[in-house]
Amino acid sequence: MSLNLSMLTREVIERCDTIAACTEEPGRITRTFLRPPMHRVHELLTTWMQEADLIVRRDALGNLIGRRPGLTSDAKIFVIGSHVDSVPNAGRYDGVLGVLLGIAAMKSLAGQRFHVAIDVIAFSEEEGVRFSTPYLGSAAVCGSFDPDWLKKKDADGVTMDQALRAFGLDPAEIPKAAYGREQLEGYLEVHIEQGPVLATLRSPIGIVDAIAGQSRHWLTFTGKAGHAGTQPMIGRSDALVAAAHFVTQVEEYAHEVRDLRATVGSLTVHPNAVNVIPGMVRLSLDVRHADDATRLKAVERILDQAFDIVKDPQMSVNEETILDQSAVPADPALINRLEAIVQEKNLPVHHLASFAGHDAVMMAKICPMAMLFIKSPGGISHHPDENVDREDVQAALGVLVGILGSRAV
Amino acid sequence: MSLNLSMLTREVIERCDTIAACTEEPGRITRTFLRPPMHRVHELLTTWMQEADLIVRRDALGNLIGRRPGLTSDAKIFVIGSHVDSVPNAGRYDGVLGVLLGIAAMKSLAGQRFHVAIDVIAFSEEEGVRFSTPYLGSAAVCGSFDPDWLKKKDADGVTMDQALRAFGLDPAEIPKAAYGREQLEGYLEVHIEQGPVLATLRSPIGIVDAIAGQSRHWLTFTGKAGHAGTQPMIGRSDALVAAAHFVTQVEEYAHEVRDLRATVGSLTVHPNAVNVIPGMVRLSLDVRHADDATRLKAVERILDQAFDIVKDPQMSVNEETILDQSAVPADPALINRLEAIVQEKNLPVHHLASFAGHDAVMMAKICPMAMLFIKSPGGISHHPDENVDREDVQAALGVLVGILGSRAV
Repeated sequence: MSLNLSMLTREVIERCDTIAACTEEPGRITRTFLRPPMHRVHELLTTWMQEADLIVRRDALGNLIGRRPGLTSDAKIFVIGSHVDSVPNAGRYDGVLGVLLGIAAMKSLAGQRFHVAIDVIAFSEEEGVRFSTPYLGSAAVCGSFDPDWLKKKDADGVTMDQALRAFGLDPAEIPKAAYGREQLEGYLEVHIEQGPVLATLRSPIGIVDAIAGQSRHWLTFTGKAGHAGTQPMIGRSDALVAAAHFVTQVEEYAHEVRDLRATVGSLTVHPNAVNVIPGMVRLSLDVRHADDATRLKAVERILDQAFDIVKDPQMSVNEETILDQSAVPADPALINRLEAIVQEKNLPVHHLASFAGHDAVMMAKICPMAMLFIKSPGGISHHPDENVDREDVQAALGVLVGILGSRAV
Repeated sequence: MSLNLSMLTREVIERCDTIAACTEEPGRITRTFLRPPMHRVHELLTTWMQEADLIVRRDALGNLIGRRPGLTSDAKIFVIGSHVDSVPNAGRYDGVLGVLLGIAAMKSLAGQRFHVAIDVIAFSEEEGVRFSTPYLGSAAVCGSFDPDWLKKKDADGVTMDQALRAFGLDPAEIPKAAYGREQLEGYLEVHIEQGPVLATLRSPIGIVDAIAGQSRHWLTFTGKAGHAGTQPMIGRSDALVAAAHFVTQVEEYAHEVRDLRATVGSLTVHPNAVNVIPGMVRLSLDVRHADDATRLKAVERILDQAFDIVKDPQMSVNEETILDQSAVPADPALINRLEAIVQEKNLPVHHLASFAGHDAVMMAKICPMAMLFIKSPGGISHHPDENVDREDVQAALGVLVGILGSRAV
């Protein structure tokens, strides 16, 4: 079995390279929703799924699904999935690795039947690159695809409707891609961590307890523009100085709260001239935590600080809330099953939160969800240097085979 | 005499309104170099100069000069001047007021002869709006006009050479606009302060000791971009956090040094995305002080702080020096003469530095220079709300008449 896993792991990593070669930009890995290279991806996956004893179909949103039928035709379905699209100039493991591990696990369990049906899904779209809308593939599968999205246009002016038809799909069939809630037993996604937590812990894999909730706000600090020469320091109402105090306080506060992430990623100065005291600064605030109460308390505290900074009556701060997305907890029973298998394999048990979104966010709307993270060396993600260690991939494959094998007849 | 001054002051302020109506943008005051409204300005000024017993000529750069000849043809020349161009959407006093006060003083002294010739100059260009080059008028008068500038184009693609010809001027004659150093006794410019210092001191006028020197630098803080979710606070190299510490330290230090001005006016974040930790920030630093040693020490100290901030080996800061312009001191003898007149008029004697540039910067290259500032209520400048108090204008006129009258035969 271990030899088998070792060979399958090598194959998975080779296949990641093979999929990486399917790209719309020579020399870089860029594979967006329904662009021509996705046809070749589907050909490859179809072959590999069939080889793993899976019956392959493609739904109307371009998701490719390999099924091992259950014992009975009304058996519930357990889904293993991740996505095969990428960001521009991507790495070779984000998404793809989870799909190939699902196929490899089913190959390792070829010829076996299960109490449940097993679907391995290669979601067609998760990153939101082509139509500025993420999770299109899993939205269709969850029955939450909004038909208005078909009118969205990509950068070339092509509508999603046109893109689907050009790929050979029928948009009218999208509703049929949806599972019924009653059909599903659960969803498990294996994914690279995309962060440094497991690397710091020197742990090959980690069990995801929750996908962190997220708050996004825009803050506008308004002061008074003025001549950088003629206006003495006293009497200035410099919006950038106020914003700078805010940025340093956000960072300081975020360090105080365990596992909080708070970032000012965008900041724009007006009028942004060398010799003019800044009159206005607009900046973004992004706050994430796996516990919603902790996140909301952090946001409140940080916004209070912003209002404290502008005590000067000449200054003001305006706040807009853009996003208040709750954390998505993983299913406790699925977590327990994962934990039992991880212990059985003599692997360290580490729990962590996911601070990026995944198809699992959508799938959690309709069934119990869990995720298994694989260590990202250096925490590098969405970058050609994205990497994995082979022994970590093998550990994840072992856990996946274990959890699926436990349902074998 | 006081009644005379009071009437002349009213007239000066009315004339500022009349000149303000000469604009290239209806509803706003915008009067740039050699654009059509300048013809009407010259007509008005010619009439008023002649009325003030001045002989009017126009030089090849469009400067209008009214002369009261000296006792002898080889008498030295004392120059009173300021500019009649404006920034877009300007106020009505910046520049214009100084020219009209010169004319009013000569009107008050009509019929009198002086040991020196007196030239009142309305410089055609000071703000640098049309050809992105300031001080064109005074550069010509000082003999430092660079003929290469004639090739510069405005926003409509018109060269300066074409603009001069279209206005009826001959670029080949520009060298003749220059005074010889040996001809000049001195230069005096009356100007609104454009800042709040005299208003804070409740002083109608102030004697300018120096035009402050100025340093300009660009600093680039480079950290490491990363995912605002997956990257924990520990291990981040956030370029904006570093830049924010820098901005707050610049402001703190500037408050510690008397009369120092230090401003971060421009700041740009890369990649400037809500969900990405900033990898790079580029910002400007503008430092001004009337004492060059104090300014250079401040710049050194501030740049040291920047290098102290980036102790993290993942981060770096790069510095480019754009400008290191020395302070321009006013002439001590002229300052003494001004001070004596101010005291004689029972006005408070306040000295201050100019933190904006003026034609006086150019004129100081060829002769003793002094400036008299008039209080700017609210310190507002380069804005339609720019204002003056009539009694302050009258005080300045009194000083100007006094200093010129002291040279009368």
